[in-house]
Parts: sequence; structure tokens; C-alpha cells
Amino acid sequence: MTLDDARQLDESDPLAFARARFRLPEGVVYLDGNSLGAMPAGAPAALAETAERQWGDDLIASWNKHEWIDWPTKIAAKLSPVVGASPSELLIADSTSVCLFKLLAAAARARPGRRTIISQKRNFPTDLYVAQGLAEMLGLELKALDPDEIIPAIDSDTAVVTLTHVDYRSAAFYDMRAVNEAARTAGALVIWDLSHSAGAIELDLHSAGSELAIGCGYKYLNGGPGAPAFLYVAQSMQEELQNPLQGWMGHADPFAFVDDYRPVAGIGRFLTGTPSVLALAALDAGLATFDGIAMHQLAAKSRSLSQLFVSQVEDRCGDETLLASPRDPMQRGSHVVFAHSEGYAVMQALIARGVIGDFRAPNLMRFGFAPLYNSHSEVVRAAEILADILATREWDQLRFKQRAKVT
Amino acid sequence: MTLDDARQLDESDPLAFARARFRLPEGVVYLDGNSLGAMPAGAPAALAETAERQWGDDLIASWNKHEWIDWPTKIAAKLSPVVGASPSELLIADSTSVCLFKLLAAAARARPGRRTIISQKRNFPTDLYVAQGLAEMLGLELKALDPDEIIPAIDSDTAVVTLTHVDYRSAAFYDMRAVNEAARTAGALVIWDLSHSAGAIELDLHSAGSELAIGCGYKYLNGGPGAPAFLYVAQSMQEELQNPLQGWMGHADPFAFVDDYRPVAGIGRFLTGTPSVLALAALDAGLATFDGIAMHQLAAKSRSLSQLFVSQVEDRCGDETLLASPRDPMQRGSHVVFAHSEGYAVMQALIARGVIGDFRAPNLMRFGFAPLYNSHSEVVRAAEILADILATREWDQLRFKQRAKVT
Repeated sequence: MTLDDARQLDESDPLAFARARFRLPEGVVYLDGNSLGAMPAGAPAALAETAERQWGDDLIASWNKHEWIDWPTKIAAKLSPVVGASPSELLIADSTSVCLFKLLAAAARARPGRRTIISQKRNFPTDLYVAQGLAEMLGLELKALDPDEIIPAIDSDTAVVTLTHVDYRSAAFYDMRAVNEAARTAGALVIWDLSHSAGAIELDLHSAGSELAIGCGYKYLNGGPGAPAFLYVAQSMQEELQNPLQGWMGHADPFAFVDDYRPVAGIGRFLTGTPSVLALAALDAGLATFDGIAMHQLAAKSRSLSQLFVSQVEDRCGDETLLASPRDPMQRGSHVVFAHSEGYAVMQALIARGVIGDFRAPNLMRFGFAPLYNSHSEVVRAAEILADILATREWDQLRFKQRAKVT
Repeated sequence: MTLDDARQLDESDPLAFARARFRLPEGVVYLDGNSLGAMPAGAPAALAETAERQWGDDLIASWNKHEWIDWPTKIAAKLSPVVGASPSELLIADSTSVCLFKLLAAAARARPGRRTIISQKRNFPTDLYVAQGLAEMLGLELKALDPDEIIPAIDSDTAVVTLTHVDYRSAAFYDMRAVNEAARTAGALVIWDLSHSAGAIELDLHSAGSELAIGCGYKYLNGGPGAPAFLYVAQSMQEELQNPLQGWMGHADPFAFVDDYRPVAGIGRFLTGTPSVLALAALDAGLATFDGIAMHQLAAKSRSLSQLFVSQVEDRCGDETLLASPRDPMQRGSHVVFAHSEGYAVMQALIARGVIGDFRAPNLMRFGFAPLYNSHSEVVRAAEILADILATREWDQLRFKQRAKVT
């Protein structure tokens, strides 16, 4: 495939219009939207409006006048088609780690007497850290297993299973329905971390029988660095679960200023403190980039981009790089990793040439494809540059220069 | 005192220059900076720089290039003179409620075997809700007492005492040193909520013997709606306490992506998830409004403003309003409350006339004085308008109109 062929694919891309929803720097091929989504073109204006017109001019009255108080649920509702859940089951709150703590503690306490939390070895680290901290506090045991050991391990002592749906390294994903089913049979709960799924591939939490999930706002959702996270609690679970981080924003009547906590009905009880309104404004602009997007088209484009990259890299680079993601695009999320013994230096050389991916230890070069703004021509260009770097051993020169600088 | 006299006071005010650090709407007397601080003039540019130049142009590289990774500690360091603590003892993180949960859980677990958390009846509600949630989770008992019962109740069964330093209604404050001393004698820990103190009155956490504190970023610190909160852990306590919300941002080596949690040395271990960089940028602009401010001058101006308001209201309104704050300015924070049977309607009338305070049930009109931007002439003007409203029963007409609208 030539660059011209790729341009033709872009011309027939039904989502090509969405790239104008972002402001990307000239000359850069940004393949790291799975780490920090690109800036929506509407974000600066949304921030200026919220800061200057609302905070600046209307001050405290903005909580009512601009309905800041409703933003955590109103903005979350935009995720409904993206993850396949009802608007009333979604909430924006805190960080991904804090949201996981909330649901993990709530779920563990909803299964009293059961002593085990199951997760995956080499899960995204913060998920394991949160689970370790909670297990220690509640006197539970965390079992971190290999992916194929998870389902067989779920038993009558399992309180909760917590897994990242799409692996942050390989992009392999779990069969959500199968894990949910195994847990349901054993009477356990499952919490899905959708950080590398939401906004990248098709999700249908409802039809997969998922009851609890959390996810990141700043990756494919384009909510800005450190954007607030989201959480999902199926309607049927909302009354049963108790938010361990009880705060006034989750109270039935926060402005009555009464001494006793009484959770509000519905998803709002999973709020804790006052959310950052500015961060919410940016996340709102991020979610607006999904307006009118058909998720099956988004998923199809994700596969088309990543598959093109895999074939281009394999064609152009030969044996020098090794695909470390599932080969079948139906079996992976929206990023791919290639292993290379000098992966770190090669990624530095790529970045120096304007192709931004990232490196994950020990030897993985990770490339994320954001279907809303990446194009097939970018994919071909990135593969061309990678091949050139490997052929000329440019990475080796760079490494040499860096060493010279250090010594 | 006439408006002219007040203007003279403003002319000799050594902090008068600081008002230019804010952008306040014309014609408004804003006396609610204790609820949401006014917008710093530098906030919109800080947000635009962070969004457009950093996120937009430099994308993921910003974490290193713009040192986003250090912002939670770097920005917190600006609080050092404001609260009287070392920079290395301060951290920006999460919300006030989540910060309280972290320190409360950490403190309770650092005093194993002790079963009681002591707080105050009618404390700011979220503080009680957080403590109730934690007590239930850990099987502890929360005792909410009247202020004068606190010190006598601290005993060998007390794990933690958690109090709001300046009361959000009356502005009465605790003798920090005395409570700390009683707790130390009994072997208990104390967590101070400084939400209505920090940036309003003089604080010296060190000399008062305080070990743990949290506080709000969006009141007197002017960090923007729902700004991240701060927490303080005295150097001597940092290694002893374990953050219950263990996340990758508090890990010794977050980008090593290892499975086991190992807290970083120092205050950073109290981080959890990725912080909102945009919210941090606004808070940074808020804290910049304190640059070069002598806290003793700020506290003196606070007392001068609130005392002028008390005397003006009492002179002009006679018996119609009743001071419900300590009369001695040395015994209160930077706001005052007056009780009035129709306080809610009177506050609505004040707001309609451009004097923004707030109402706290059942009958309290609350007026906050932000020494960085409020002036003596504003205080006199607010009292004049209040007297006029009460004399003409304007509030009664407004109430009548509102009723007519509802029915």
C-alpha cells in the first residue's frame, strides 16, 4: 500500500469529518491518544466560557444559573451510547483510581463473608495498588492471576473480580460476557476498568451483563490531562451498594446541612466532594467529539487503522520488530505493540521525527489509533518513518548522542 | 462611619493593591469568597496556556516538558507561608472530602485498638459524612459532640479527633494548640479541616503542634469552582501513615509499572490517581494571588473588615438582626453571620441589589470578607443596602412576588 492508496481510504472514511473536531499540531502523527487524547478544538472556548463568563461574572450563583450541580450526571449521560448503558447508570467523578476504590469497597462489602478479590497479574498497576490497599484495610486477600486462570478461580469465596477490559500493553481483551457469567454463577461481582476500551471499540455493558465499571476520561474520551473519571453502576445494583467515600455531593439533600448521611437515590450517591467544574467543562468538550458518531463505524475504523499499521510495519521492517498484540483485529483494542530490543531508543527516534507513540517496559513500542482523528495516511507515514529509522539505525545514533550528553 | 471614612481606610490599606489581582464584576459587592473565591485575573490566561500551548501543542510530552508530574507538590509549596508549614509537608490532591477520608483512615489505622473518632455536632456536613462512612467500614464509633465537650472526651480510646478549625456558620474557631495538646497527651491524632481558615486568617500549623490537616482550594484560596484540595502531613508522621487510597501517582516509581505498591518517600505517597492538570493550573493562579502577602496584614485586614461590618449593621439596623458570630474579632474567622427570622428572603433581596452573601439554615445570613479583594467601602455599602432593605421591607415584597410566581 502506498501513501496514495491510504489517502483513498481516508477519502471514503465515513468518520473523516471528525478530525476537524480536534486541534492537532502540524506535522505530527499522534499515536498516543490512548495515553492522553488530543485537544478538542472546542476545549479552549469551553474553558474560557466556564472560567470568565460563569465563575468570573456569575460567581457563586453559577451553581444554579449554569447548573454546575448537575454536570457530573449531565456530562456522564453523553457516555451512554459510547459504553452501552443508560444515562442514569453513569457518573463523572474523581480519578479512575478513586472510582475503582469506591466500587471495589462497595462491592466487597456487598458480599460479606467472602474473602477474595481476583485480579490479573500485570493489570494496569494502579488497579492492583488500589485493590492491595483495600484488601489490606478490609482483611481480604487479593489474588492476581494470569488471564486464563481468572474464570477457573472464581468461586464461592470470591467477593469481586476486577479486570481491565483491554490490556494496556498488548490490547488483548477479555470476553466480558464470559467473565460476568462465571461471576454471576458463583455469586461474585465484577468491576471492569474500561480505560483502554471506552471511546475506542464498541461496548455494550448491558448486553454483556456487566454490573459495575469505571474508566478514564483523558484517553480516548479526550477530556484533558487528568480528566475526571467515570463510573457505571447498573440500575439493579444502585440501591444495594454503599459508597465508602460518603460526601455531601452524594447526600439526598446536600444543602440541608444535616449531620447524618443519607444517600440520594440513584447514581448520584457515588459522588463524594465538590467536583472540579473546570475539569468537567474540558471533559464535556471531549465527549462532544463523539456527538453523532456511530460506534460500529468507530470500531471498524479502529480495526482498519491498526490492521493497516501491522501489515505496513511487517512489510517494511521485516523481522526487526515483533508484533506483541493479538494478530486478529477482532481480538484487540485500538492500539498495537511491537517488541524491539532497543524499543526505548527507537521510540525516542520516532518522537524526534514527529511520530508520537510511547514505550512500555521492557521492550514494547505502543501505538494507539484514535478513530476520531487518526487517518490511514498517518498510519502509512508512521510505518515508513519507523522502517527508515530501523534501516538507518538512526535510533542507535540518537542513543549515542544521548549517552555523550550524559557523560 | 460614612462611605468617605471607609474610603480613607481603603487608601491606607497596605493590601489594597491585591484587588487588581482579581476580576470582579462591576457593581457587585461580593461577600461570598468563603464559599467560592473570586476569579484571579490570571486564571483565564493560565487555563489557555495549559490547554492550548501545553495539552494542545505538546500533548503527552507535557508531563515532562511542562513538569505536570510535579504540579501537585510544586503548587502545594505556595501554601507554605499561608498555613505555616514546610513545603515538603503539603500536597494538592482530590477533593476536600477525599483528602479527609485519606488522612482519617490513615490516622485511625495508625492507632490500632482504639475505637473512637471524635468530631463536632454540626460540623461541616461532609466531614461528618466521611467520618460516618469510615467508622462504619472499620467498625469504629464516631462521637459527634458539642465544642466544649471535645477536649474532655479525648481519652485512651480515642484514635482520631477531626474538627473544622473555623466554624462554617458562626466563624468561631478552636484553640488549635489546646486540642492538639489534649490529643497528644491521650495518644490520639488530630485532623484539622482548614477550609474556612486557610487564606483568611493567620495560621501556624507548626507552632500549634498540628500534625494533620486538610483544606479546600476554592474558598479563600481562589482556586476555582471545585478546585482540588490540599492536605498537610507533618514530616514526623509521613512515614508512619499509610494512604488507604493507594494509586500509581503515590508509587515510588509509577512508570516502572510493577505489580506491587511501594509508596514514594515523603508527602507524595498521599497522591492516588492522575490529578486534573487544568484544575491545578487554575488553583496555581489562585495561590499566586497570595504572592508577597504578609499573613499578619491579611489577618488584620480581615478583622478590620468584619468588625466594621458588625458595627455598621448594628448601628444601622438596630435590633432587627442579631449577631450570631463571636463578638471579639480575635475569636472568629473571616466571616460573620447575622440571624434574622426572614434571613432567606432578606439575602435574596440583598443579592438582587448586588450584595452577594449566602444563607445557612435555619435563619443565618452569612457574609464573608476576603482580605485580598474586599474593601472597607464595600463593607459600608453592604451595610447601607441591608439597612435599606430591612427599613423598606423590600425583602417582604420580594417574597410576595416569588410566591405569586410559584402559584
